[in-house]
Amino acid sequence: MKLYDLELSGNCYKVRLFAALAQIPLDIVAVDFLGGAHKQAPLIDLNRWGEIPILVDGEVVLRDSQAILVYLAVKYAGETWFPRGAAGMAEVVQWLSTAANDVQNGPASARLVDKFGYAIDKADTLKRSARILPLIEAHLAGHQWLALERPTIADCAVFPYVALAPEGGVSLSDYPNTRQWLGRVRALPHFLAMPGV
Amino acid sequence: MKLYDLELSGNCYKVRLFAALAQIPLDIVAVDFLGGAHKQAPLIDLNRWGEIPILVDGEVVLRDSQAILVYLAVKYAGETWFPRGAAGMAEVVQWLSTAANDVQNGPASARLVDKFGYAIDKADTLKRSARILPLIEAHLAGHQWLALERPTIADCAVFPYVALAPEGGVSLSDYPNTRQWLGRVRALPHFLAMPGV
Repeated sequence: MKLYDLELSGNCYKVRLFAALAQIPLDIVAVDFLGGAHKQAPLIDLNRWGEIPILVDGEVVLRDSQAILVYLAVKYAGETWFPRGAAGMAEVVQWLSTAANDVQNGPASARLVDKFGYAIDKADTLKRSARILPLIEAHLAGHQWLALERPTIADCAVFPYVALAPEGGVSLSDYPNTRQWLGRVRALPHFLAMPGV
Repeated sequence: MKLYDLELSGNCYKVRLFAALAQIPLDIVAVDFLGGAHKQAPLIDLNRWGEIPILVDGEVVLRDSQAILVYLAVKYAGETWFPRGAAGMAEVVQWLSTAANDVQNGPASARLVDKFGYAIDKADTLKRSARILPLIEAHLAGHQWLALERPTIADCAVFPYVALAPEGGVSLSDYPNTRQWLGRVRALPHFLAMPGV
């Protein structure tokens, strides 16, 4: 099973992190991102979006880090990481949407500006960060984990770009519950780091 | 089962649409959105995000339209709408992320500016629309439906704000495959409309 990957991408790291935690073996294929390999054949034929990560498992080809987490969890991990019942699954999916939208367009995009020079409106990324981080902080005032009172793929989806927020000039100093949660994720068995977290 | 709802919200409509198609009975509770009821008690206690839709089904309380679709499908509909296997589920979840991020920040946000006067950068919403709509169009060149060659909650999640795109000044005239797909959704048994679609 191949993961087309960039070490510095938080979206790729979501997948590497969960695979490490759940002990799912991945064949990591480093993509020449600066050379634009993800925008050209053969990768553009695997993902028309021109983005990584891409997961290829036999006939299955998936874009979108959240969808890849769901695939790996359902196929290769137990219900612990992603339940099969309606209420539990939906509780986790709420956070997958939060990762795909609020976190991506907030702290993740602030980092794209500061670290990689993307032409994104920095003020907008800061405004979105200032909305989502207090919501996560308030949630974590009453919970040890994002969903189901245990580690799930919800944590794997949200952790990377919250942990990397300072690389986009977004301080976590006002968010003590969030920093404690980051520490709990880091302390999980088989935790895998990336530069900056 | 209560859906806290606003008729003109495409995110609420995603849920009403799927419930109609799958014949799941919902108790619709109209929220005084202009009066800010979603930002105050009791609704803010159901969803700290201060957004609607909110679904309440006994003890289960859910925010986020994508998560609500997953919940309703797993609990009350067959595998047709949302498969339980890894590959099929992940194929659908890809489109839930597209709905939560690209469509929400593209055509849905363009409409928020034009129709409701939101202080969002219109140019950014148009740029995002001009990225995501061709991707959807290209996908639909080879497919009748977004995922699994049949109607699923992926279609329910993406349909509303693509159908409503003209209300944000985003024309669909360059996207014939997309318009045909919108027509296929409208022709589904038990299809439910909203103003503008």
